[in-house]
Parts: sequence; C-alpha cells; structure tokens
Amino acid sequence: MGLIVQKYGGTSVANLERIRNVAHRVIRTHNQGHDVVAIVSAMSGVTDSLIALAREINESPDKRELDALLATGEQTTATLLAMMLTSMGSPAQSLMGFQVQVRTDQCFGNARIQDIRVDRVRSLLSDHSIVVVAGFQGCDAEGNITTLGRGGSDTSAVAIAAALTADACDIYTDVTGVFTADPNVVSKARKIDRISYEEMLEMSSIGAKVLQIRSVEFAMKYNVPVHVRSSFSEEEGTMVVNEDNGMERVVVSAVTMNKSDARITLRKVPDSPGIAAKIFTPIAAAGISVDMIIQNTRASGKTDLTFTVPKADYKVALAIEKQVAKEIEAEDVFGDENIAKISVTGVGMRSHPGVAARMFACLAREGINIMMISTSEIRISCLIEQKYAELGVQALHTEFGLDAA
Amino acid sequence: MGLIVQKYGGTSVANLERIRNVAHRVIRTHNQGHDVVAIVSAMSGVTDSLIALAREINESPDKRELDALLATGEQTTATLLAMMLTSMGSPAQSLMGFQVQVRTDQCFGNARIQDIRVDRVRSLLSDHSIVVVAGFQGCDAEGNITTLGRGGSDTSAVAIAAALTADACDIYTDVTGVFTADPNVVSKARKIDRISYEEMLEMSSIGAKVLQIRSVEFAMKYNVPVHVRSSFSEEEGTMVVNEDNGMERVVVSAVTMNKSDARITLRKVPDSPGIAAKIFTPIAAAGISVDMIIQNTRASGKTDLTFTVPKADYKVALAIEKQVAKEIEAEDVFGDENIAKISVTGVGMRSHPGVAARMFACLAREGINIMMISTSEIRISCLIEQKYAELGVQALHTEFGLDAA
Repeated sequence: MGLIVQKYGGTSVANLERIRNVAHRVIRTHNQGHDVVAIVSAMSGVTDSLIALAREINESPDKRELDALLATGEQTTATLLAMMLTSMGSPAQSLMGFQVQVRTDQCFGNARIQDIRVDRVRSLLSDHSIVVVAGFQGCDAEGNITTLGRGGSDTSAVAIAAALTADACDIYTDVTGVFTADPNVVSKARKIDRISYEEMLEMSSIGAKVLQIRSVEFAMKYNVPVHVRSSFSEEEGTMVVNEDNGMERVVVSAVTMNKSDARITLRKVPDSPGIAAKIFTPIAAAGISVDMIIQNTRASGKTDLTFTVPKADYKVALAIEKQVAKEIEAEDVFGDENIAKISVTGVGMRSHPGVAARMFACLAREGINIMMISTSEIRISCLIEQKYAELGVQALHTEFGLDAA
Repeated sequence: MGLIVQKYGGTSVANLERIRNVAHRVIRTHNQGHDVVAIVSAMSGVTDSLIALAREINESPDKRELDALLATGEQTTATLLAMMLTSMGSPAQSLMGFQVQVRTDQCFGNARIQDIRVDRVRSLLSDHSIVVVAGFQGCDAEGNITTLGRGGSDTSAVAIAAALTADACDIYTDVTGVFTADPNVVSKARKIDRISYEEMLEMSSIGAKVLQIRSVEFAMKYNVPVHVRSSFSEEEGTMVVNEDNGMERVVVSAVTMNKSDARITLRKVPDSPGIAAKIFTPIAAAGISVDMIIQNTRASGKTDLTFTVPKADYKVALAIEKQVAKEIEAEDVFGDENIAKISVTGVGMRSHPGVAARMFACLAREGINIMMISTSEIRISCLIEQKYAELGVQALHTEFGLDAA
C-alpha cells in the first residue's frame, strides 16, 4: 500500500458535479489501501475572473495583493473537495499553502518553492485522513501568500510528492496525455505513452500546456514518475519518466507552438560592454522572464537587440525599456505581440544531425519567414508571425513523420 | 494625529465602485495624518452564496472546511481594497486573520478571539502603510482558519482597535446609526445619538443587527468608543459609549425583534436531578447556543422543557434532542420555527418599575399571545408567533413614547 499524490486541474473541478467525480476517484484509491494527498487547482475560469477583477482596479495590480486574491481560488476548491469527501464517509482535511507549509521565495506571481514541511500532512495521513492541498500557492518566510505562476498546481503536486517520497504522482487534467502536437491544431496528433523528463521539460518551456515547467524540473530532480492522464476517463495517459530504452526511437517526439510571448526590440544600441546588463537588469528586477534574445551588430558600432517576454508582462517590459533606451541612448524601442514560437523536440536529435536544416526547409516551403531561432540539445524553436503558427505546426508534424496512420 | 480603525460592512464593499468609495474615505482619513487600519467584510451576498454552495454538498457541511471556505470572502475584499488604495497612491497591505494574527479558540463557525498580535500591523503602520485586515476570520493555535460568526467583522474591528489602543473605531454600515426600532418596520423610528454599551449589548443579543454582540462586549471591556455610521453619507451616526449623563433620560431606548430563532420542546420529561444537563450538554457539545429556556412542572412528576436555538442550528438540535428524549424517556419532542422574539431595552428600566407590566398589557391589547418571557436588568423579551412580530414592535414603539414627532 503506497502513498499516492493526485493533482486535479481546473476543468476537473469546474463545478460540484465534477468535484464529486474527483471525490469518487480519490475514495476509490483510498479504499484500495493507499494514503492519498489530493492537490487541487481553482475551478476553471476562476483565476481568470479574479485577474480581470484586479485589472479593473489597475492594469498592473499590486503583485502581493494579487497573489492573496488568486489564492482564494484554490482555497475554495480545496475546502469543497474536503467537505465532499468527509460527507461521502471518507474524512478529509484541506490545507492551504501556508498550512502545509509550502515555503517559497518572495517573487509574487511566480514564486519558487524553497522548502516543504510535510509534518502536518504526514500526521493527518497517519490518522487515516485524506489530505486535500490547495495547489498553486505557498507562503514566504514572513507569512505572505505567494503563488507559483500559471500551472503552479502541477509544481505543488510534484514538489509535495517529492517531499513525501510518494509512490506515484498522477496529474489529472482534461486531456488523456501528452500528444505529438496539440490535437486541436493537428488532427493526426498521437498520444505519447512514455516521454523523458528532458523532452517534457523542453516541451513545457515552449508552451505545451500539459505540465508547468517547474513541475517537470522537480520531477526530474527528485525522480518522481509523473502520470499525466484525464479525470474524465479510465484511459492510461502518458508517463513522464527517466529516459530509458522503452521509449520510441524517433528523431522528433513532438511539435509545439506558443502564442503567449511578445517581442521587444531596441534599435541602434551603442555597442559597449555592460549594455546588455543595463537592458536586462531592470527586467529581471521586475520579475519578468526573458526567453529568446538575439543581437545583430551593425557596421556603425551600434547593435539591434531583440528579446521576448510573456505577453502578460509586455506592457511593463516595454515601459521599462523605453526608460532604459533613453539612458543608454538607443535610437528606438518597439514591440510586437503578433508572434508565435514553434518548436520541435526530441532526444533523438542528439544522434540525428540535420534536424534544424529540415525544419527551416519545411517552413520555407510553406512560405513562413523565421524571425528568431533558438536551440537546445534536444529542441529547435523558431519565432514566426502568429498567423502562420497552425500552418507551421501541421507541416512540421507531417515532415517529421508524427502523423497518425 | 491618531490611530483610527474603520470597519466596512458587506454593503459598503459590495462592488468595485463601492470599494473605490471606501478607498477615498480611508485615504481622506490617512491624509489627515492618521494611521488607518481598515477592517473589511465579504462583499454582500458572498458569504450566503458560499454557504449555499457548501450546503449543496451537505446540509451540515464540515465546520472546519466551511470556515476556510467562508474566509475567502473577506480575503477577496481585503486584497481588492489594498490594491485599490495602492493604485490610488496610498500604499496599503492586506493581512488575513492568520497573518495579523487574530488567535482564536477552535470553535469553528463561532470562534472566540483569545489574543491578537499587533506587531505586524504596527510595523506596517510605522512604514506609513495603510493596513487592510480581512474581518470575520482568525486562526487557532494549530493554524486552522476559524471564523467569528455572523457579523464577526465588527468584533474583528473592535478587538483590533482595543489591541492597538486605537483612538477611534468607526463601524461603517448601510444604516446611519442605531435606531429606536427597525425603520423598515416602524416608520417613526428615530436615530439614537448616544447609547450605552450595556443597552447596545442587550439590543445586539436580541437581534438588532447593527453590531455583533461580541464586538460590544469587547468595546465595553476595553472602553473602545464605537461610532456606528453610514459609508454612504457624511451624517454623524450613533456613538456607543460608557453610560453617562449626556444620554437621553428615557425608560425604553429601543424596541427590537428577532426572527432568527426556533423553539424546541421536550414533553413529559421525568423530573429528576441531572435531566437538564442531559438535555443541554449535547447541544453545547455541538457548539449550538441556547437562548431562552423555560420549564413547566406538571402534576405527574413530569415536566415540559422548552428552549430556543438559532434557526441555522434547528435541525441539528432537533435531531440531538430526539436522541436525548429516547435516553431520558421523555414522551415527545417537537419544534416550531414560526416564532419571533420582541424586546424592549433601556437603562431607564433600572429606576422605572412596571415596564414589564406595560409591555404585556400593550401586547394583550393587540391580541398577541406571549409564549415565553425572559428579562435582564435593562431588557424584557417576549416570544410570540412570528406573524405578529411587526405589529408588536410598532405597538411597543408607540407605547413607550419613541415615535418621532
């Protein structure tokens, strides 16, 4: 009999009927003799509604307050599920982030877990209670409520599974697993049975919304096998595990796209040492993540510098860089939100050269211009015009032999 | 320059526009050079919606979980007001009950404040921050979220004002003060300028919904002058203070009614020592408050025992007593929800005998039958059929000379 961590996403707990289904699933596992810790997200739509409410007050609401506001979403679901379980005869208690405690840094809106104290969870489990934990949230050393960023409940689940050395971590969501491409975009996309942490990490980092990237980092670091599956069926999902021989030997495992970034360009920046630090330090100080960066040197001793940031942080970042541009005497700053990043990922790339060339040729055949390129050992990403995103993904899915028969 | 505690009730923060008005009022006080601590309730309707949601799961939802669920209401308002204040140029931070900390006992749904640590509030105030506190909530020694019962935000406000030895405690609500009777029932009701803690205590205990009874107990115990006033006007409200010579010399200050109780009767109870304890111990153990109790001895050596409990606890209390009745061999148990309690209150009663007789005669003239009577030094209450409640209050308001000219 083991210790099972189950995470239920927003669509799985969207209303009381679905929470009841989740309760049945939790109880079934509990009745098999397992200890169960259920991590829950906010009901679908709640987080967005709360953000919209805060934005009616201020386009960039105070981040500390926004976190405490958003945390109510998971608090609501956790208490409702605990009530439901107790009411169905399986005593349960909810714990919020500050009660677990999920200790984080103070980076509101995107906090990182530093430490998890599991004494209270263990004590409840030893009393045969089911434990329901509000995902997505933690608290800093001063007791301020923090949140872990979009999809943070995945990270809560994997981190808690790691801290408890759980036997399994099941991520219940509204899809049946990880696919070779978004089935809404590519009709011939196929479910992947097993995928390595590294591939999942690359896919998460480029916008596959199945798992939050940090959750995969945690899983990889602590070797937590993660089972991504649907709460609406009994179908086996995708196992995210250490790279092993059981995996399909393919060059490219998946094609993904991401429309959530925006691009900012500083034109004719004086090309002197320390300039890049001046450009990116204030962005980092504002807690904004930068993804791709390219720099083109001009003959004049000036350089153009382009980088991407999340669309959510675009306005703030643009305002910061307008200020920076004045200070460093760059000629101009402009931005673009109509971009998409398409990527191919696969551990097979390590042993198969030429994947990049094949990708560029494929996009060229479709008449798609590439604005920026970034690569890792097992991934190649291209920034393109947003309107070509679906076309690009479909073409690459076919090109790399991923289409279902 | 002083330290002002302001409490804003649910109707005062019902939507963003009203929260903006509250922010203006808070900032005005702050700009006058005062330190301000604002205590907020949930937006009107939110607590009821959450209770209704919980009851869809179970008619008597788990109390620990219900408290954590309800606490999201005040958490939401507190964060929105803090965002609003910061956004309007007056930096503010929200604090939840567990952050303040408002330490309570573990009586979920009706917890009592045991201790308030104000270090964090003081530290924020000394940084010139406005502090917004989520009312109604606290936490027990184990860090569980508790709530203080209906109207508990008043108690949060007065208790925090006492702990901070604040210079004033303003309770902003949707009425302009304390009235001689509910103006919705008695058109000639008048606003009272000054009222003693004791009268307010009696009035709160019998259903005047202006202030939660515990808030008045705190105010009296720590001598906190409380100003009850409207957040929708600049009109002076009612000062709740120590009894003094400045008060009107009237026999009866106010007439109130309360429809929130239900009555339970145990018939033909064997009249032996220890029976009353057997009847009320399990009610107390369930955390249910009993208000009036009467016992009529029959010739047979048996006795009838009747008591009232809040309607919200009626079903649970009735189920408990059905069990008790079997054990103690009482003949029957029945209940009645169609009752109302009407009361007259006034410190003048101490020096004016005959108020009770006048009250009974007045009700008799209206053909209203009295089911139960209870009295204190400065209050007389009668339980009557619910349908006569408004008639009774109007008649008594006239009888005791309270009608406006």
